[in-house]
Amino acid sequence: TPESAERTAVPGVATGLAVTGAGGDVLFIEATSMEGEPGLTLTGQLGDVMKESAQIALSYLRSNGRKLGLDPNALAGRRIHLHVPAGAVPKDGPSAGITMVTALASLASGRPVRPEFGMTGEVTLSGRVLPIGGVKQKLLAAHRAGLTEVIIPARNEPDLDDLPAEVRAALTVHTLADVADVLALALRPAEDLGDLGKIDGPALAAA
Amino acid sequence: TPESAERTAVPGVATGLAVTGAGGDVLFIEATSMEGEPGLTLTGQLGDVMKESAQIALSYLRSNGRKLGLDPNALAGRRIHLHVPAGAVPKDGPSAGITMVTALASLASGRPVRPEFGMTGEVTLSGRVLPIGGVKQKLLAAHRAGLTEVIIPARNEPDLDDLPAEVRAALTVHTLADVADVLALALRPAEDLGDLGKIDGPALAAA
Amino acid sequence: TPESAERTAVPGVATGLAVTGAGGDVLFIEATSMEGEPGLTLTGQLGDVMKESAQIALSYLRSNGRKLGLDPNALAGRRIHLHVPAGAVPKDGPSAGITMVTALASLASGRPVRPEFGMTGEVTLSGRVLPIGGVKQKLLAAHRAGLTEVIIPARNEPDLDDLPAEVRAALTVHTLADVADVLALALRPAEDLGDLGKIDGPALAAA
Amino acid sequence: TPESAERTAVPGVATGLAVTGAGGDVLFIEATSMEGEPGLTLTGQLGDVMKESAQIALSYLRSNGRKLGLDPNALAGRRIHLHVPAGAVPKDGPSAGITMVTALASLASGRPVRPEFGMTGEVTLSGRVLPIGGVKQKLLAAHRAGLTEVIIPARNEPDLDDLPAEVRAALTVHTLADVADVLALALRPAEDLGDLGKIDGPALAAA
Amino acid sequence: TPESAERTAVPGVATGLAVTGAGGDVLFIEATSMEGEPGLTLTGQLGDVMKESAQIALSYLRSNGRKLGLDPNALAGRRIHLHVPAGAVPKDGPSAGITMVTALASLASGRPVRPEFGMTGEVTLSGRVLPIGGVKQKLLAAHRAGLTEVIIPARNEPDLDDLPAEVRAALTVHTLADVADVLALALRPAEDLGDLGKIDGPALAAA
Amino acid sequence: TPESAERTAVPGVATGLAVTGAGGDVLFIEATSMEGEPGLTLTGQLGDVMKESAQIALSYLRSNGRKLGLDPNALAGRRIHLHVPAGAVPKDGPSAGITMVTALASLASGRPVRPEFGMTGEVTLSGRVLPIGGVKQKLLAAHRAGLTEVIIPARNEPDLDDLPAEVRAALTVHTLADVADVLALALRPAEDLGDLGKIDGPALAAA
Ligand SMILES: [Ca+2]
Ligand SMILES: [Ca+2]
Ligand SMILES: [Ca+2]
Ligand SMILES: [Ca+2]
Ligand SMILES: [Ca+2]
Ligand SMILES: [Ca+2]
Ligand SMILES: [Ca+2]
Ligand SMILES: [Ca+2]
Ligand SMILES: [Ca+2]
Ligand SMILES: [Ca+2]
Ligand SMILES: [Ca+2]
Ligand SMILES: [Ca+2]
Repeated sequence: TPESAERTAVPGVATGLAVTGAGGDVLFIEATSMEGEPGLTLTGQLGDVMKESAQIALSYLRSNGRKLGLDPNALAGRRIHLHVPAGAVPKDGPSAGITMVTALASLASGRPVRPEFGMTGEVTLSGRVLPIGGVKQKLLAAHRAGLTEVIIPARNEPDLDDLPAEVRAALTVHTLADVADVLALALRPAEDLGDLGKIDGPALAAA
Repeated sequence: TPESAERTAVPGVATGLAVTGAGGDVLFIEATSMEGEPGLTLTGQLGDVMKESAQIALSYLRSNGRKLGLDPNALAGRRIHLHVPAGAVPKDGPSAGITMVTALASLASGRPVRPEFGMTGEVTLSGRVLPIGGVKQKLLAAHRAGLTEVIIPARNEPDLDDLPAEVRAALTVHTLADVADVLALALRPAEDLGDLGKIDGPALAAA
Repeated sequence: TPESAERTAVPGVATGLAVTGAGGDVLFIEATSMEGEPGLTLTGQLGDVMKESAQIALSYLRSNGRKLGLDPNALAGRRIHLHVPAGAVPKDGPSAGITMVTALASLASGRPVRPEFGMTGEVTLSGRVLPIGGVKQKLLAAHRAGLTEVIIPARNEPDLDDLPAEVRAALTVHTLADVADVLALALRPAEDLGDLGKIDGPALAAA
Repeated sequence: TPESAERTAVPGVATGLAVTGAGGDVLFIEATSMEGEPGLTLTGQLGDVMKESAQIALSYLRSNGRKLGLDPNALAGRRIHLHVPAGAVPKDGPSAGITMVTALASLASGRPVRPEFGMTGEVTLSGRVLPIGGVKQKLLAAHRAGLTEVIIPARNEPDLDDLPAEVRAALTVHTLADVADVLALALRPAEDLGDLGKIDGPALAAA
Repeated sequence: TPESAERTAVPGVATGLAVTGAGGDVLFIEATSMEGEPGLTLTGQLGDVMKESAQIALSYLRSNGRKLGLDPNALAGRRIHLHVPAGAVPKDGPSAGITMVTALASLASGRPVRPEFGMTGEVTLSGRVLPIGGVKQKLLAAHRAGLTEVIIPARNEPDLDDLPAEVRAALTVHTLADVADVLALALRPAEDLGDLGKIDGPALAAA
Repeated sequence: TPESAERTAVPGVATGLAVTGAGGDVLFIEATSMEGEPGLTLTGQLGDVMKESAQIALSYLRSNGRKLGLDPNALAGRRIHLHVPAGAVPKDGPSAGITMVTALASLASGRPVRPEFGMTGEVTLSGRVLPIGGVKQKLLAAHRAGLTEVIIPARNEPDLDDLPAEVRAALTVHTLADVADVLALALRPAEDLGDLGKIDGPALAAA
């Protein structure tokens, strides 16, 4: 999908799947960090449950980063900002949990998320992937958006029966129970990082 | 129980018993810690009373840790995050108190909780275990979930008469009045810790 | 009273008297302290007035501790946690004021509260004991609970006429106007402290 | 008045006059200070306007203390606690302003407030005394309580016509426009301080 | 006007013009500063818009103070308290903006505000003076209060046609678009400062 | 436009386009910075979504400033104040996002915004420009206000068909997808900065 490719070209952005009033949709989780008072800034009109998901995602990575191979300092002692466009649309629910973990791990590792991947699943503080709702609408939306690889919770595998056969055939669906496996699958390998940082160059180069 | 075993395989997770609209259920308390502003992050849509239970559990351990044999620095000067999945389900009440103490003591000691144990009971700041409601539904749920050892408050002993005989026979029920006794019973001994930390290995080992 | 004796066996716990929907009752104020951001954590579903009582109690002791013979550092620069079980029962009103001062002074001095004492009375910032309501129900509850010494505000002395003669005869009632006198009466003398600290011993002695 | 004399025996307590549902009444403003995070703790179920009065009173003294002859460090860098008993009675309005300034100046100077004085008046940040309501009820209450000297705002002088002649004759009424004049009048002179600090002696002298 | 002269005799007080339920009125903005946590304390029952005006006024001066000739340290690193008497009257709206800038600049420079001046106008963060409502009532009130010089926003000049001729003749009206011009006009020159600081002398000179 | 030229004469002010109850309108975003507690002060009665836009704008610049050629210290470790006049008019929505980024980048670089430019567009945390509503009314307002260059989101290009031909002809419309391109276009080049700082000179030069 061109949009997903464009959005996930930089580290810190992951593609999620959501249920909206009008069926399913693709959403992007954007994460960045900066010097400043350590903590988490959350924007995108997120509800209470979704804000808690972001806290869980960050705590999981900060507590388990070392054994995941992440630089332990990448997410500590910095201000993290996590945004979910579009900015005026209220969003809630726990199902963006694994997408948030993925966006933050991408930011921390400098490894972009594979553009062909979309994902949905609640995450717990110890990294378990819990089942969510709306699998059919979410996978139809992933297919419409041109995604070809999808991650869902292991305990949602029975929901795949509801998918039309041609959609099921077009998607590679990964059913996972541990968010460490999500990260191993969805982040681009470190060796592909050669051309990152090649962004525009100083556009503002002041006097 | 396979789920309880999987969940409690790492230190910091304890199995509680709750009453829900649909009878009793098993819930998991997850605790972790990280460097950062000292204090308590609470997630899982917890109500006021349950949030206070978590503060009481932490204060009890911080004030009494030394005489319990806990490293006095394990819970001080760090950010503690306590989560109760599932993230979208509102939860309240004081009866998860001893489960919270157990999860935090497990985290602080590095000793996992015994997977066959479920527990319920309010805890006070000086470590007394106070009676709670719903003992029958909670023990039926523990039995259904495959747990074999259950801890309840001493003053709830009369409620055991309401249990079906075969459930009563299948469960070893411990009626306790002091949370120090809960910890002595529910945490795996230190000598069993040989194979902890043997988790997956660096999945993200960056460039 | 066995319960009061058990509860007040450690420094920091005092026995109060309250009016509830169902007459009077005994309640326990538990206080503890720990390293951390200085300040007051309050739990037990306390209402606004009762939270203010706790602030008044702490400020009184911090401002007057030296002349009361308290270690001036015992309550300064530490996190104080004050809890009133049972955790799910809402509580309010100013009449626990002198009980809160007593619990905190017990904590600061290491001197437990005498187990045979119950007390009720509002406290002001300069240590005056102001009158409260419900004296009759509170003293009946104290008697039922096996307490034998009761402290009430001096200006509540007329309320003693309402007590049944046999209850009046069974209780030693102290009518006081200055909270310093409450402390002099209700705390166990320092010379009795020989066997404190002899609690269970390390139950968790980790690897 | 015996009560006023007892209450104002220590520095930091001033006698105010208030209008209640049942006519006028005397109230006491208690102030104390302690080491800790600098700032103002307010208790006594104070409404928004009355809380702002306390901030104004403190800022006035901190900004003008030096020219008032107050130790500039007495109110800076310390935690100030101001309480208005009775703790459960809601109170509001600006008319306790000059009483709050007086209580805080008494605390800062160590000079008790003269026990025969009651006072009422709004104070501004630059020390002007603004008019208030309820002068007649307040002065009747002062007389009933045995006070003999009363301070009211200069612009309230016309309200004195409403007082019964015998009450007017029994009271010395000072009509003032500058709170510095209130302090000069209501605080006991420094030379009377000989027997202060002679309070009970260590009642708790611990082991 | 005697009242305005008395109020503005000290630096930090400026005379504003307001619309009330009963026509226009004069109000005073009082500002002071003290050591303490840097920031802004606002009292006088100010509404949201008026509180924001105060923040804008302070930020304008802190960002532009140097080019206005203000001591850059006068408003930085100190606690600023801004109060608008009378304390119990709710107030809101942006039209006190230039009066707030003037009061704060007076405080920072030590130059009192000219007592014959009243003013009204919204201020923006870059110092533009925006139009406000109620010009006629405000200028009638200024005239009634004995003020002779009035500052209004340039874009409110057409509103002057509504004034009665004799009021228009009695007032010198300045129509300004830049708040720097307001300050140049309304603050007393530095050379007049000879007799400031000559206030009463130590009234409290303690023991 | 004279007003826009006057407003944007100093760095830190950008011209936005908004939809109001009465069609479209031009608004100005003003930004300034000062020493103080790092963070963002927002005024102008901004709604939740608009406040989040400001946080996104600041985080984008702080995370990407170096590659945009901005001094990395210009926006870090300082208090940023962003105001949207008029102060009493409530405002909300995400469409001021790119105007906020532009005002802040102007402040950080010292390069004023070109006075002939107006702009509208939501911004994401990674700098994407998302489509907004009300393009027709906003461009009519830009034309009425005398602006000649307008920036809109790339995905809003189809909305240009709705514009009257003479307005379309009078405006140069830039349809952009990356906020870095907005900055490259809308900020005056560094070499034009010769006469900045030439503002009035010390108007207050104190004694
Ligand atoms: Ca919610
Ligand atoms: Ca969901
Ligand atoms: Ca509640
Ligand atoms: Ca419960
Ligand atoms: Ca209340
Ligand atoms: Ca009560
Ligand atoms: Ca009471
Ligand atoms: Ca109010
Ligand atoms: Ca009043
Ligand atoms: Ca408002
Ligand atoms: Ca909103
Ligand atoms: Ca919008």
